Amino acid sequence: MRNLDEMTITQAVLANNSAIGDTRLCEIMTSLVQNLHAFARDTKLTETEWQRGIDFLAQTGAANTPQRQHFALLSHVLGLSTLVLAQNDRKPAGCTETAAFHAPSAQPVLHLDPGADLSAGAAPPKGYVRGAVLDTRGNAIPHATLEVQPGCTHATRHIERALLQADEQGRYHFCTSLPDNPRILPDGPAGQLLAALNRPDRRPAHLEFTVQARGYQRLTTQVFRQDDPCLDSDPLFGVRSSLITQWQRHPGGMTPAGTFSNEPFYTLAFDFVLANE
Amino acid sequence: MRNLDEMTITQAVLANNSAIGDTRLCEIMTSLVQNLHAFARDTKLTETEWQRGIDFLAQTGAANTPQRQHFALLSHVLGLSTLVLAQNDRKPAGCTETAAFHAPSAQPVLHLDPGADLSAGAAPPKGYVRGAVLDTRGNAIPHATLEVQPGCTHATRHIERALLQADEQGRYHFCTSLPDNPRILPDGPAGQLLAALNRPDRRPAHLEFTVQARGYQRLTTQVFRQDDPCLDSDPLFGVRSSLITQWQRHPGGMTPAGTFSNEPFYTLAFDFVLANE
Repeated sequence: MRNLDEMTITQAVLANNSAIGDTRLCEIMTSLVQNLHAFARDTKLTETEWQRGIDFLAQTGAANTPQRQHFALLSHVLGLSTLVLAQNDRKPAGCTETAAFHAPSAQPVLHLDPGADLSAGAAPPKGYVRGAVLDTRGNAIPHATLEVQPGCTHATRHIERALLQADEQGRYHFCTSLPDNPRILPDGPAGQLLAALNRPDRRPAHLEFTVQARGYQRLTTQVFRQDDPCLDSDPLFGVRSSLITQWQRHPGGMTPAGTFSNEPFYTLAFDFVLANE
Repeated sequence: MRNLDEMTITQAVLANNSAIGDTRLCEIMTSLVQNLHAFARDTKLTETEWQRGIDFLAQTGAANTPQRQHFALLSHVLGLSTLVLAQNDRKPAGCTETAAFHAPSAQPVLHLDPGADLSAGAAPPKGYVRGAVLDTRGNAIPHATLEVQPGCTHATRHIERALLQADEQGRYHFCTSLPDNPRILPDGPAGQLLAALNRPDRRPAHLEFTVQARGYQRLTTQVFRQDDPCLDSDPLFGVRSSLITQWQRHPGGMTPAGTFSNEPFYTLAFDFVLANE
């Protein structure tokens, strides 16, 4: 194992893998080494270029926090997350499609009562969301939990993540700001990469949900808005037709919460269908 | 660009690359996306597995400092650094081989006088190193700078990086602890990866040098010790036969520095041959 060159290095690294006890880890490391080496070889990557790559990873590491998971975001931006989700999402027909990685919260998630307002005083318009959590036969799943992430650009004036519980009949409802098109900001590595690649950095407006109930597969998904100009240019490649929803506009008046609004508001009805475990 | 699945996602990501202005960046990103996707597809990577990968990158980022560059170390451990160096190292015959990435120091490097002692009071034995910096025709290159990194496990009692200048005749000399076998500690991500892969974590004893002189290509290399038990199991894949050197043992007595030693000491003569720019 001396004098390794571009012809012999890959085999030398792989020869080490025979000592791995875990068969699956061995498979993963073998493919990782082969594909990373193929990348360096195909591009005839130079030392300066690879040093920039290493520096980029270090910058991503420095920016990364439990609240802003930049390595996950890079994975989304490179299409890896969509690929991994798609090749594992083998649910029965009729189930709500998966459209995001489940990222556990770094902080305790706020438990809110049914009907809660997540907009925390952000500017109108508000959106009133309701629906049910169902099984594949259309029966209500009682008491499912729904973790909601509004994913808005005005997140500082907004509850970032809230936990709601559906009722005995599987019904849930809450109120939030009408989602807008959040930007992947160029103050972070993923945003800088998008800028360097001349790619769009605005996501379609969405609400992200993680829905869980005992006996059913956990579902993490995103719900989009019809007529959103960014539906076909999502920098995270997450849009699915079955998740594009119709928000209905109301000019003002009595809201679903029983309050009176001088401002226009929106309503959305969306049901989640969970697969059995 | 909706409903992307494992068959269509790669092409969808690559379609974005047509907007990249920089041809080389486009080449690199195209190959990176293709090879990362091939990795995920070949292994049929699951969401849980990829989340562990993302978490590992985040842990590496958290551990990374300018002094301990863990992403660079991961690149070495995966053989990527050796591959990149090898495929770009096209120097004339007779030149000293490259054997490491040049990592610029995060801190000002200590400038030392010729003959300086880098061991800073570490335990014996000491090693006395001398040699010359030459061109490919054997002529002295005057006043080259040599940045020396002893790479010892007892680094806390050792100067980590020192800058020396060769004299008019290209000659340099200094004193250091005799290098031992440094360990890639399991307190960091690269060490943890080596442990998980059941791979050796001790490097061959070495001194690392970066040699620079105006009009010549910068050389970053490592000098190893004959009879080192780790020469054929370097976890960083860096050993080259031409860089394995003969340290001569002396039972004690007058040292090359003109001092008297009761302890055994070692001497090494090694010349660097630089390629023209």
